[in-house]
Amino acid sequence: MLTVAAETERIAEGNVTSAQGFRAGATAAGVKNGEPTRLDLAVVVADEPCVAHAVFTQSAIVAAPVIVSRERVAGGRAQGMVLNSGNANACTGDQGLAAALSMADATAEHLGVDPRLMLVASTGVIGVPLPVDRIRRGIVALAPTATGGHDAARAIMTTDTVAKECAVVVEIGGRRITIGGMAKGSGMIHPNMATMLAIVTTDAELDVRVARGALRAATELSFNQVSVDRDTSTNDTLVLLASGAAGGASIQPGTPEATRFAGALEAVCIDLARKVARDGEGASRLITVVVDGARNEVEARRVAREIACSPLVKTAVYGRDPNWGRIMMAIGNAGASLAPHTIDVFIGDVQVAADGGAIPFDAAAVSEAMGANEVIIRVDLNGGFGHGEAWGCDLTEQYVKINAEYTT
Amino acid sequence: MLTVAAETERIAEGNVTSAQGFRAGATAAGVKNGEPTRLDLAVVVADEPCVAHAVFTQSAIVAAPVIVSRERVAGGRAQGMVLNSGNANACTGDQGLAAALSMADATAEHLGVDPRLMLVASTGVIGVPLPVDRIRRGIVALAPTATGGHDAARAIMTTDTVAKECAVVVEIGGRRITIGGMAKGSGMIHPNMATMLAIVTTDAELDVRVARGALRAATELSFNQVSVDRDTSTNDTLVLLASGAAGGASIQPGTPEATRFAGALEAVCIDLARKVARDGEGASRLITVVVDGARNEVEARRVAREIACSPLVKTAVYGRDPNWGRIMMAIGNAGASLAPHTIDVFIGDVQVAADGGAIPFDAAAVSEAMGANEVIIRVDLNGGFGHGEAWGCDLTEQYVKINAEYTT
Repeated sequence: MLTVAAETERIAEGNVTSAQGFRAGATAAGVKNGEPTRLDLAVVVADEPCVAHAVFTQSAIVAAPVIVSRERVAGGRAQGMVLNSGNANACTGDQGLAAALSMADATAEHLGVDPRLMLVASTGVIGVPLPVDRIRRGIVALAPTATGGHDAARAIMTTDTVAKECAVVVEIGGRRITIGGMAKGSGMIHPNMATMLAIVTTDAELDVRVARGALRAATELSFNQVSVDRDTSTNDTLVLLASGAAGGASIQPGTPEATRFAGALEAVCIDLARKVARDGEGASRLITVVVDGARNEVEARRVAREIACSPLVKTAVYGRDPNWGRIMMAIGNAGASLAPHTIDVFIGDVQVAADGGAIPFDAAAVSEAMGANEVIIRVDLNGGFGHGEAWGCDLTEQYVKINAEYTT
Repeated sequence: MLTVAAETERIAEGNVTSAQGFRAGATAAGVKNGEPTRLDLAVVVADEPCVAHAVFTQSAIVAAPVIVSRERVAGGRAQGMVLNSGNANACTGDQGLAAALSMADATAEHLGVDPRLMLVASTGVIGVPLPVDRIRRGIVALAPTATGGHDAARAIMTTDTVAKECAVVVEIGGRRITIGGMAKGSGMIHPNMATMLAIVTTDAELDVRVARGALRAATELSFNQVSVDRDTSTNDTLVLLASGAAGGASIQPGTPEATRFAGALEAVCIDLARKVARDGEGASRLITVVVDGARNEVEARRVAREIACSPLVKTAVYGRDPNWGRIMMAIGNAGASLAPHTIDVFIGDVQVAADGGAIPFDAAAVSEAMGANEVIIRVDLNGGFGHGEAWGCDLTEQYVKINAEYTT
């Protein structure tokens, strides 16, 4: 993490409404038949139009709400987003596109917002028509408030077992700026898994170029380090809304203020990404991988991600087996330039391999470290100054059970 | 598969000694402590020096035997290979390299073969010194025979539950040519898994350029379609030895004979690759993915592989859930040029999606097809003439169990 992360101050129970100028709310729209009382429709809305940026799935097959939101946010402005769980509105054709537009526009109308500024996101089963009538009835019941962030975070959960949210305060240019966010996604235990949705809100006044640059950089270091780009779902969406409600001059690109903002945004995104990894389907432990000594940061991140994504490493962590050979195998597959005979591997505080080969180590101490809530795997490639981190979780029988039984 | 594959004739219980001019054998060398009676050391040797080619792991971290074999086979000639299971001799440094050389040279000496023509391969745990003394004692006990192919196939098994072998006869230029092979590998249920070793022998007289071209092409269509290149282990090795014992003129590049040979070699490699997929760790079913209508063959293979590799598709097959949305998601992530609204998806004989969207289908019939020993997923992208196939297996709790408990 950047040093600036230490300078942020965490807000207890912070979330997407912690920053000034935002309201949120949720309701049970009955998106899924048979679940009429489950919160499944959420809205996050700003009092005024915001500077906005978003990043979306890189898949060649994108859901209807992604098409709508991508187009609406392209100009760098948005005021809110409506989100549903229980149905991805993906592979639903022209009808699905009409449904996504209808969902966004009905929300805009209900809240008195310009429809061109209302974004939309969906998560859930693919290929089933969105029950747009039920959703429109739910939209009318939405009454967003400045304390509604937690309900919104709950409403976007699918197989998630906990709501994922956080907020921090950071001083920038003499003002206290708040950045808060929520995320969903628990199927990232492997590449190719379930949808990741996230919204981050801030009351900073941002130049749109700062919003874009900071969100792109934070994504690289956080969400992209739990889910490899090429393996994103049809619906993955991450939105940044900046209300400017904290006042002050607009933060300009290339300034120390922009750097401070980027660092704090990175801290929020990493926090959310770690929560996504920790809540991986069936997971019992968070795996944090730290790689140093790569030729550059990009290669360091790639090696870290390869280790965090490897099913063999994940099962070894589940079995608390200090099988560092699997870590070496993952390193070898990362497509990075490296010298095998200079690699050191640590699990927790214990070195388990030196100069690319075996060394004696205390197996009981390593097994203990592999039983921790957060298992830390550290690799030094000793070939440069590149540093990178990635997060994953162990792979358990429960993951298979959840995904074999999750049904269309 | 190429049409020519239909023109091959399968040999009952065929294997690596089916072709003329080859002998094989195996012994229990006690590579793994506590398993003194398990066959774990194998040799395949030709009566005379062969035309040879081999392909190896693309990993940046390769095992010592890969370094030795890669160098020795580079000239296009080899006479045999010694293989052990129970220890990968990877991440074992200079000592490991010396051990691999010693293992190969001792075999050459025992069998009266030029050591420069003796290849070596290992599979098993990474980072543990090869017990070279026990292996050298085992080598002296090796007595390869013309009927020893099956024992050799058994001796290279690790978590494999069955020996994988086959042989075919094909008429080329008026002569009956035999091609036979053996393979091991059962950890390919996901990318990043265990070692794949395979040897294919033939009594055809091959120009070395035909050996190289045909093996490269067959690999692309077979083993690379169960295990993505970038995810190979430290030890993956596939060797082709051509004895020429069937007689006749050498098969030259660019001739109809070379094409026929390539087709038959492809059939053998696909058969072995399918056996590797079917025996995936913990697997209950083989998944065959057939993609048509891609812009070209490379993209068709990529899409097929992405589907066959997706944990969500694998768990859906295990759960017999006709969740075609997961297939669409995998298609979207393959990095292929495609139009989402033209995609048709079939499971078994039943169409489950048309024009990229939902259609009514008989869920019971699909669930039935998903319970077959071989589950066939067919995708038509309707965007060209590219055809490709890939193979995988379902993902079960048993996979997790095996890999959490497999211990260093």
